[in-house]
This record gives sequence, C-alpha cells and structure tokens, in this order.
Amino acid sequence: MPHPLSIGIAGLGTVGGGTLTLLKANSALIAARAGRPVAVTAVAARDRSRDRGLSLGGLRWFDDPVALANDPGIDVLVEAIGGADGVARAAVEAALAVGKPVVTANKAMLAVHGAALAGLAEAKAAPLMFEAAVAGGIPAIKALREGLAANHITRVAGILNGTCNYILTTMRAEGREFAEVLAEAQKLGYAEADPSFDIDGIDAAHKLAILAALAFGRPVDFASVHVEGIRGVSALDIAFADQLGFRIKLIGIAERTDAGVSARMHPVMVPVASPIAHVDGVFNAVAFEGDFVGRVMLEGRGAGAGPTASAIVADIIDIARGRITPPFGVAGGLLSAEPAVPIAARHGAYYLRLMVVDRPGVIADVSAILRDHAVSLESMLQRGRSEGEAVPVVLTTHVCQEAAMAAALSRIAALDAVIAAPTMLRIEAL
Amino acid sequence: MPHPLSIGIAGLGTVGGGTLTLLKANSALIAARAGRPVAVTAVAARDRSRDRGLSLGGLRWFDDPVALANDPGIDVLVEAIGGADGVARAAVEAALAVGKPVVTANKAMLAVHGAALAGLAEAKAAPLMFEAAVAGGIPAIKALREGLAANHITRVAGILNGTCNYILTTMRAEGREFAEVLAEAQKLGYAEADPSFDIDGIDAAHKLAILAALAFGRPVDFASVHVEGIRGVSALDIAFADQLGFRIKLIGIAERTDAGVSARMHPVMVPVASPIAHVDGVFNAVAFEGDFVGRVMLEGRGAGAGPTASAIVADIIDIARGRITPPFGVAGGLLSAEPAVPIAARHGAYYLRLMVVDRPGVIADVSAILRDHAVSLESMLQRGRSEGEAVPVVLTTHVCQEAAMAAALSRIAALDAVIAAPTMLRIEAL
Repeated sequence: MPHPLSIGIAGLGTVGGGTLTLLKANSALIAARAGRPVAVTAVAARDRSRDRGLSLGGLRWFDDPVALANDPGIDVLVEAIGGADGVARAAVEAALAVGKPVVTANKAMLAVHGAALAGLAEAKAAPLMFEAAVAGGIPAIKALREGLAANHITRVAGILNGTCNYILTTMRAEGREFAEVLAEAQKLGYAEADPSFDIDGIDAAHKLAILAALAFGRPVDFASVHVEGIRGVSALDIAFADQLGFRIKLIGIAERTDAGVSARMHPVMVPVASPIAHVDGVFNAVAFEGDFVGRVMLEGRGAGAGPTASAIVADIIDIARGRITPPFGVAGGLLSAEPAVPIAARHGAYYLRLMVVDRPGVIADVSAILRDHAVSLESMLQRGRSEGEAVPVVLTTHVCQEAAMAAALSRIAALDAVIAAPTMLRIEAL
Repeated sequence: MPHPLSIGIAGLGTVGGGTLTLLKANSALIAARAGRPVAVTAVAARDRSRDRGLSLGGLRWFDDPVALANDPGIDVLVEAIGGADGVARAAVEAALAVGKPVVTANKAMLAVHGAALAGLAEAKAAPLMFEAAVAGGIPAIKALREGLAANHITRVAGILNGTCNYILTTMRAEGREFAEVLAEAQKLGYAEADPSFDIDGIDAAHKLAILAALAFGRPVDFASVHVEGIRGVSALDIAFADQLGFRIKLIGIAERTDAGVSARMHPVMVPVASPIAHVDGVFNAVAFEGDFVGRVMLEGRGAGAGPTASAIVADIIDIARGRITPPFGVAGGLLSAEPAVPIAARHGAYYLRLMVVDRPGVIADVSAILRDHAVSLESMLQRGRSEGEAVPVVLTTHVCQEAAMAAALSRIAALDAVIAAPTMLRIEAL
C-alpha cells in the first residue's frame, strides 16, 4: 500500500470541517478511488478552544495557516479560510511557492487574484484546484475544463447563488416581498446576517468570472463583470413574469461575441420552457453551450458542508491519481485577454414595468419615446383601471441595444405621469 | 512543441466521421487543452470507395481494424465500429494487448465485456476510456468517476435513450399513439429502420449497466438489468399521467439497497415537480445521488455526431494530458460483485389502468384482490360512464412489493369484467 497522501486543512468552518468529516467518513472508498490512502494530519484555525463538533484528536494544530502551508509533513494544502486576501492568499502562495498542491474553495480569491495564482502554480508545477469554488458539489469546473474540452464554448449561463435562488423561489411560491423573505432566510440560516455579498450578486459574479476564464481561455477578469443583485425584484414583477410565461432568476451569463467577451450577473426573465427556469430553491445550475456538444446543463446543491467537501475531496483524489490540468485549462501563455464587452452593448429583449397615473396619453408618450430610440414594442399590458390613480403598465420589447433602452428609459422616467423609478429586466432565451 | 499524438479511427460512420471532423475543426484549441497537437493519421473502414463527405486525404487506410490497432504509428485507437463482438472487440483487445490507449463509444461491448476488457487494460496499464458510451456529449462518466468520487453513490437515474424520449415527448405533446409517432421518427431519422434496440430499452440498459458498475464499484453486469421498453405505453396512459401530475419517461434506475444492487430500465411515472420530468425530446439526463453531495443532475444531447465526438475527443485530451483513471474508477481487485436484486423485490407505488365492463361490483372485486395481496389503494379514477361498455379505470397504490403487485395483477387480469391486459407502470419519486 502506498504512503498516505497527507492533507493539511487551513480553516475549520463549514468548508474545512465538512472536508475533515468527509475524508474520515468515506476513507476506504476514497483510498480505493485515489489509489492510496488520504489522511488529514494537520489543521490550522484561529481558536483552538472552540468546540466545532469535530474530532481533532491526533491532528497537529497550527495557529498560522502559512506555517501549515510550509510544513514539510503536508503534501496538499486545503485552503478553507475564505476572503480574497489576507492569510488565505498568503497560505496559498506559500504552498505554491514550494511546489505544493493547493485545493481551495475560495472564489473571491480566484476571481481577483486567479491569474497571478495560476501563474505561480504553473511556474512551480504545483496543481491549483478549485472545483469547490463554483457551484458547490456540481462538478462544473471539471465538466467545462475536461469534459467539454474539445469544444469552443459560446456561452455559459448559471444560477450560481443558492441564497438568491431560494429568495426568488420563495417570493414566487408565496407571493411575498423581498425584504420579508430575506429576513426569514436569515433566520433559517440560508442568508448571512450581512447578506449583501449574496443578494447584491457579488458572490455569484466571482464564480461567473472564474467560469468565463475557463470557457474562453482568458485571464480571470472580475473587474469587467457587470453585477446587479436582486434587491430591486418585487413580488409584482414576479407575478407579471408568471403571466407572461417567464421566471425571474439571478443568472450569470458569459458569452463570446465578435466584439469580445461579455460577462454579466443580473436578474433575468427566462422563458418557462427553459430548463434553467425550473432550478428552484437552494439549487444551482450551470449551462454550457459548445460548438459540437450543444447545450449541457448541470444542476445540484451549490453550497453547504457536504456538497462543498465533495468537490474538495474530488480535487484531492485527482491530485492523488496525478490527474493534473493547468488551472485554467491551458498553459498560461496561451490565455488571451480578449476585450470585455460592456453591458451597454447588449442586444436583447426587455421587460419594463412603469407605475403611471392612469390618464389618457401616457401610453402614447411612452411609445413615442421608445420609437425615438428605435426600441420596438412586443407587448403592452395594463392590469386594472382607476382613473387618476397609479397603475402598473408592463411592456416587453423586441431585441434592441441596451444603450438605446437605457436612453429611452431615462426619458420615460422623467415623464410627469411616471411616478416611480421604472423597473427594467433583461429577457434571455436560455 | 511536443510530438503530435497520433490517432487511428476504426469505423467512419456517424461517430468516427464526427470525431475526424471535430479533431480537424478545433485543432488549435484541442492542442492547447491537450498540451500537444492531436492528429488523426490513419483510419479503418470497410468500403474505401464510399463517399462519406469526409476529407480523407493524407490518412493511411486500413481495411482491417485489428491491423490499425496493431500499427506502431498509432498512439491511440478510437473504436467507432459498434457491436458487442466481432471486429470492434478484436480491435480493442489488440490495442490493449500492446498497452495502447483505447477510446470507445461502444456501450454494447462495454456492457457485455466491460469487466474483461477493463481487466486487460489494467494488466497492460493501457487507458480504456468510454465517455461517449453513455449519454453522448454529457460528461456523465467523468462526473461520476471523478467529480463525485468522494461519495458513496446511493442511486443513479437516467433518461439514456433519445429516441424513446423523443417518442414519449411527442406522444404527449400531440396526443398521438406510439406506432404513429415511431413511424414518423423513423422518417425523420430519429429512429432506426429496425428500432427494437432503442424502443425495447436495450441500448439504454447497456448504458445503465455501465453507470451501475461505476457507481457501485462492481463488475459490469448487463445480464442482471431488468429491461422493459416503451411499446406498451399508450396515449391514454400519458393523458392519465398528466391528470395525476406525472410524466411517463423511460428511465433507468440503479440503486444500492441492503440486499444488493438493483438495476432496471422501464417506463416510469415521475412527478411533474421532478427535474427529470422536464427533460424532453432527444435530450438525455443522468441524476446521481451521493451521500455528501446530494442530488446532481446532468442534461444534454445523448446522441449525434457532434455530441459523441465531443466526448471522444475529451477522452483523447485526457490521454494526452496523462489524466488516467482505472476504467471503472478503482483497481479491478477492489470491485466487488454484490448480489443483484430482482425486480420482484422492488418496493414502490404503482399505476394500474384496467379496461373494464362498466357494471356494478367490478371495483369491489378489484379492491378485494388488492387487499388480499396487501396492496393499499391511494386513488381510483373512472372517467366517463357507459353502462355495459368498456371504460378505463385507473388506480394508484401506496408503496408495496412488486411480487405482491404482480400476483394481484394476474388475478385481476383473469376477472371476467377486465377485458384487456392491464397496464402497470411504476411510480418513482426521483
């Protein structure tokens, strides 16, 4: 029997603790699939005295994750601390610098420093693996980087944040407003006390930046991802979406166009007939489109101790078997920084909801502005009538350019009869 | 630049031709992802003069696939001939015997001879790869064998035959009968002239046998898969399924139970709320359940030149990169032949449709028989009344054992008032 692969885990929260638990629970199976035993021998965390419900007996303890990374008794560093910088990054850099394989779930770090870390990994011939950083237990990175490696990828679309998907699913199922459902999700532990990282789309955008780099062979470029969250989605819009045959989901889309790569994370109206429209609750999904394979979609749990640990240990098994791939699928020198396409260049259809004073001529004014900006209406819907009062008017457009829509919208918002900020949602036929 | 990896393709039908086309079309991308150029240098097929719409210039031609396999100028054999035995198997065995990597899409061969071929591959340290054998372009093998390798898999469920799924989807969408939709599918090229391999569930069962071996770490055992096709599914049952909140799909299910491994391919009534219920047309899907990851589902095109070639070339890229795994995920000596659980041992709910003469007492007789066999009714539905005429009666049961259901059903079928063979469908909460 070969020598066990010795694992050091930095960070003993949900992710690190889950990894420790999984490696112990399924040790015989993992040894068979890895071709050798895999054993955690050391951990690093801040507070030694805290009860985490984990059995830490027999494990060496490090207060400093960098010291753990540098320890010669450790073959693989699992970084489960989190955060784009600080000790997480220091520990990863320390391990890679001595050619030691790193497995991380840290999407923020990869989104911001992924290109530099991949360069370091390549220079030192050290594997840098991050299946757990995107879509939790779904083997999305492996599917894209290896399973679909023969394809030019034309589009990646994903529901990448379970908190947002849970909130939107619950808002629709129960007809409730965002703030109320968020508060409940916080009570249930589905949302953080400070939820902005999730609900403002940042966490999901980190993951999209990583997927876009892999899909299109470019250095990770989080700064060029257009990000909007779900705070502005109302129960009224979800109800209108239902009537029109759509669902509202927070979806990240990265596309290769003639002008470059577009990457954006925002609420989307997606047709009910689309498979991604049926991905509900805390589930995540990622859909890839390749030139030979067509559309492939993967769905599963995007967070939680079990799914995240499943992804981390899969990476460890790959390392144990010697199944190594450059971090972004090709040698760093072959990555090319294609231009980023701004959101203003989007071509697509739009949903608009206006709160207007119900009086003659309002629709005529709105229609005239849209016409002036070459935006063509597909449908118009006004529910209810109460002269002189505020009523919602819903419009959908044919495909137009976002810059034109934005210009029209600012004029529409300035109309006297329009008494609240208009809601604009992008329609995507995914 | 390293020496190109030299590929020999045996068989130039849809799969072999598609692979040749893909390797040429995306050669620069593939070289980057493989870390070296990949080039087809030789092919083998029966008829050299046939026009396949492929450019074969510069390729060496072999009439005999075994000679191609043995040719020292070939680094990897792609077997795209098909059939469990004959030259396909001979060529694969010849390549493996000299330690040469093999990539194959041949599910029949793997389902029947997979254990022996894996043994040969292991003995000669030759990779034997078969992503294209299951679910076409979906990287299902890689997801299961590598991506979910940390998990004890408890269940695999899949829509694994696009022809059947297309027929069932069309029957439902258009309210038409099986024979009519099959004839049309044959005209459109979605079904073979001799369709039995597809519609009787054999092709899908081959794929299920391979997945079950990977999921449960046992030698492939096609003989123990219970197989039923879709010839018996009627438009009437599809309509009743709709009313009851189900879809009828041909689904393969492999489960680990306390008694061993159960593997069965048959039409299933699946709740509309299940993600797999929405996989329509020629699409395939595979859902895995793991002890840590929970449920992961993959969906995509299960057949056709492009998707199949995508899977074959992914395997070639793995070989080029040295990402090698034992064919069934663990060393052959670690596979254990768990007992096969017969279909009679299934515990589950059932849908029954009886054509009965509409007269008093029939339901009482049927109910009494079910009670005698400890089968508990969940619902009963009789649509329409026309005394003395034949009417359909639909029953659904609570969970019971299949052996009890089968015994009850043979007594029900023998009742005077039951004027046609009853239809029985298994209900699965996937």
